Amino acid sequence: MGRWKPDGRGRLEEAALALFGERRFENTTVAQIAARAGLTERTFFRYFADKREVLFWGSRTLQEVMVDALATTPQSAPPLEAVAAALDAAGTILQDRFEIARKRQAVIGASVELRERELIKLASLAAALGDGLRRRGTAGPTATLTAEAGIAVFRVAFDRWVTGTAPHDLPQLIRDSLEELRGVTAR
Amino acid sequence: MGRWKPDGRGRLEEAALALFGERRFENTTVAQIAARAGLTERTFFRYFADKREVLFWGSRTLQEVMVDALATTPQSAPPLEAVAAALDAAGTILQDRFEIARKRQAVIGASVELRERELIKLASLAAALGDGLRRRGTAGPTATLTAEAGIAVFRVAFDRWVTGTAPHDLPQLIRDSLEELRGVTAR
Repeated sequence: MGRWKPDGRGRLEEAALALFGERRFENTTVAQIAARAGLTERTFFRYFADKREVLFWGSRTLQEVMVDALATTPQSAPPLEAVAAALDAAGTILQDRFEIARKRQAVIGASVELRERELIKLASLAAALGDGLRRRGTAGPTATLTAEAGIAVFRVAFDRWVTGTAPHDLPQLIRDSLEELRGVTAR
Repeated sequence: MGRWKPDGRGRLEEAALALFGERRFENTTVAQIAARAGLTERTFFRYFADKREVLFWGSRTLQEVMVDALATTPQSAPPLEAVAAALDAAGTILQDRFEIARKRQAVIGASVELRERELIKLASLAAALGDGLRRRGTAGPTATLTAEAGIAVFRVAFDRWVTGTAPHDLPQLIRDSLEELRGVTAR
């Protein structure tokens, strides 16, 4: 995955996650992150607007990948299958980032502000999937419902994956979670 | 509903919603709200910690009502039915507050900060329902999934209700939305 290679961005990300873990997000400065990565603050700001963006820059990429997967699913597929394809694409990309995802989640879990930011990112992801479904011709409320349910599936699977309480295959965990949703809503 | 009677709280709420609509949330002061309601600032602060709480105090009541409804649903009911009972209780209570809900939603829709606050309240509602399901013996991830799906159902129904694009019966809109979720997830 070219996107995730350990270039300047990757080195800064690793340094930031290490420092956030050691001294908390609130107590870490950009200067410290740059120094730990062996780079300058100027380089830091070439990649990230601020230290919080180190944790959230991937959301945009993830959203693009998911919306693309949704759009390229055959038009004949029902909405939940298109969402399943988007979730699978996300799972596949994240699978290679397990160590980073695990550290990132610990940092986010330790801060109310970051947990709120994460929620907002997930809501915007759900909104983007809903828009994608509407572009495929799914009716408005159905699109919203399906997208939101898909994000719920993703969150449960991601949580199992990142806390290591389940086998280490995120795409499989996502499929399991989707099955579970089908079970819960079946009459 | 004794809880919603137009006492000091209700008068302040009405005054605040009128002012937020006229001059935006950001440009309204507590002094103006109190004056419009014919009450003192001191009285305002007896009911609300700040002007934002005028918009969100009901979330706590709603959450209590929903968690109660969940807890009193027969133990034999499957998790989604318990969540449906909670949503029905919420719909019944909100049904009498249509004008307030409509004005409130317009205010929230006009502010990024308030939309984010609303998201966070809905997430905490989902978490409370998930906890309620776990107390009924539903397994952890199933409880989370069911609660999140229930909140998605609620949001879609609420949105239809408050924008007036559908008939004016929130509990019925919630049932319709739940049916829609069942349809989307059916194989």
